[in-house]
Amino acid sequence: MKIDGQSYHTIWLDDNKKDIKIIDQRWLPHEFRVVTLKTVEEAAQAIKEMWVRGAPLIGVTAAYGMYLATLEAQGKPNSAKYLQECARQLLETRPTAVNLQWAVNQQLHAILSADSPQEKIQIASDTALRLKQEDIEVCRKIGEHGISLIEEISIAKSSDTVNILTHCNAGWLACVDWGTATSPIYQAHNKGIKVHVWVDETRPRNQGARITAWELGQHGIPHTIITDNTGGHLMQRDMVDMCIVGTDRTTRTGDVANKIGTYLKALAAKDNNVPFYVALPSSTIDWEMTDGKNIPIEVRGDDEVLYIYGKHEGTIKKVRLAPENSQGLNYGFDITPARLVTGLITERGICKANERDIKNMFS
Amino acid sequence: MKIDGQSYHTIWLDDNKKDIKIIDQRWLPHEFRVVTLKTVEEAAQAIKEMWVRGAPLIGVTAAYGMYLATLEAQGKPNSAKYLQECARQLLETRPTAVNLQWAVNQQLHAILSADSPQEKIQIASDTALRLKQEDIEVCRKIGEHGISLIEEISIAKSSDTVNILTHCNAGWLACVDWGTATSPIYQAHNKGIKVHVWVDETRPRNQGARITAWELGQHGIPHTIITDNTGGHLMQRDMVDMCIVGTDRTTRTGDVANKIGTYLKALAAKDNNVPFYVALPSSTIDWEMTDGKNIPIEVRGDDEVLYIYGKHEGTIKKVRLAPENSQGLNYGFDITPARLVTGLITERGICKANERDIKNMFS
Repeated sequence: MKIDGQSYHTIWLDDNKKDIKIIDQRWLPHEFRVVTLKTVEEAAQAIKEMWVRGAPLIGVTAAYGMYLATLEAQGKPNSAKYLQECARQLLETRPTAVNLQWAVNQQLHAILSADSPQEKIQIASDTALRLKQEDIEVCRKIGEHGISLIEEISIAKSSDTVNILTHCNAGWLACVDWGTATSPIYQAHNKGIKVHVWVDETRPRNQGARITAWELGQHGIPHTIITDNTGGHLMQRDMVDMCIVGTDRTTRTGDVANKIGTYLKALAAKDNNVPFYVALPSSTIDWEMTDGKNIPIEVRGDDEVLYIYGKHEGTIKKVRLAPENSQGLNYGFDITPARLVTGLITERGICKANERDIKNMFS
Repeated sequence: MKIDGQSYHTIWLDDNKKDIKIIDQRWLPHEFRVVTLKTVEEAAQAIKEMWVRGAPLIGVTAAYGMYLATLEAQGKPNSAKYLQECARQLLETRPTAVNLQWAVNQQLHAILSADSPQEKIQIASDTALRLKQEDIEVCRKIGEHGISLIEEISIAKSSDTVNILTHCNAGWLACVDWGTATSPIYQAHNKGIKVHVWVDETRPRNQGARITAWELGQHGIPHTIITDNTGGHLMQRDMVDMCIVGTDRTTRTGDVANKIGTYLKALAAKDNNVPFYVALPSSTIDWEMTDGKNIPIEVRGDDEVLYIYGKHEGTIKKVRLAPENSQGLNYGFDITPARLVTGLITERGICKANERDIKNMFS
């Protein structure tokens, strides 16, 4: 998608074939920075410290991390062991996103099947690029399917603006391009359908206010930032036509792990008969898991709750919000049970959030 | 209650009988400032700009504002008209809190029934002090009734810690002393019952993270700050034994207007069978209103969403959170329908949130 008129992906292999370039999302919306990852260590750090975030992008970044690992493994005496160690390091960065496991395991399997170091490098490069291109295509297709839902509401409203609420950032900056939750929105907008997005701020890291608002603004999509407390009230006042969110992991029964607070919006949507959709690439489905309660939920440091970053007189400052002696607790995700989900928007089409329909869609 | 070991009220008449002293809550928790209000204009400003906040304290501040008005009215040719103008000015500061109307109208009625300016001043002083003392007593009684709910849970948990979630600040800093939602908590703690409070941050103005956390900390009550997104997940994990919140206005049918986001917590409580109580002085009940949808909801400036205040290197800074070109929308309150409320904790006792039980309690 476009930034200041220029097309970007969130991640790419540098022309020198040695470095990975990413958009460092920690400084958005105040500063747009592209940084270089030269080692698997740096790739792991970029994931762990959320220079990149969003389940699909985490997966692609880890895949490129494994490419860097093959470069580093050259000439090492026990390269297979080294590569396995790198895979472990990448897998440990974020516990909730299932794409991470999926991408790293695909890479490891492909790389270990190759013979020469050169072949390993080539296979890792090809696999990372393939995963990247697949992600773009999957996101495009999610939009192609999801647009029908927006179009239906637009027609029912006689072409009046369709108001869509989203939580966190499941936008193109969480993927490589298009985004998951945002893909139907971008495509509807491109087609001339009037849309407006309610952007949940998404404390504690404010991915909504910082990233979703920024990427929507760059693409010219009307949007309004609201606190995470506000969505329920808007639904009570009929100011929300539908919700679309992303997911970090969805069980094969349709339970959805997504950014903390998603569950509260799903409850409000149910209570006010607002359709609540989850957009996801099928790589996000955990086919082993039948109960969302078993999805591991990341607990992050409480500094993210007690402090916040913002811009003051031209520079980014970290300010303390809480009393000096108070502590916080910082769960990263929550589980929205399938019963609250109207439907899943996938690259294959839209299905209900239950085991049978999900299975039918992907069999 | 105590601040740094010293007992305070949130508002008091200065010994000179001319000035009102308040704790200016905008700087908490970083700075503790007591400021002087010398004119009705300043009293209105203190309410409007939230130097003081919380429905009961707004009422008492407005009552003292009317006292300042009687001082100003001395010697004016048409003092009755001036006093009515002052009342109007105070009433316009915050639209949602019903206590404001109640306090100002009580004052106006009492003052206008007096003959001499001196008598007006005396009556205004007496009425403000009476409202203040009544508020203290009402809050104390709310705690006296509410403690039984905490005690029951404590017994059921074999004296293990009772985890209570609260939203915004319905603490003593929202009142004169004790608080409403916090009164049962303080009294339970004082009685030796083990309690721990989950403090919702309460965006956009962070009254939870700034004020509730601070006042609980000053009184030595264990607490943890969480983002507004987190409460639902904690309830799913059985980490919340009960919720207690305050209210700015409650209809005679039991619909509750409170800080934006309260409705989302009530939905989560219902979904997880967590008792959800609202603590309120009966002055907060709007006896005219039968449907919460008719309660006027204040819309505040979007700067509160787009910027935040915090402490950086010893000074309080305002930092921008959102992209330069994004806008926000800032509803101050939402409505929790009576069906989601387990009970109302009032100065008369605990009753169900429905018209019959509320009426019985206060008839």
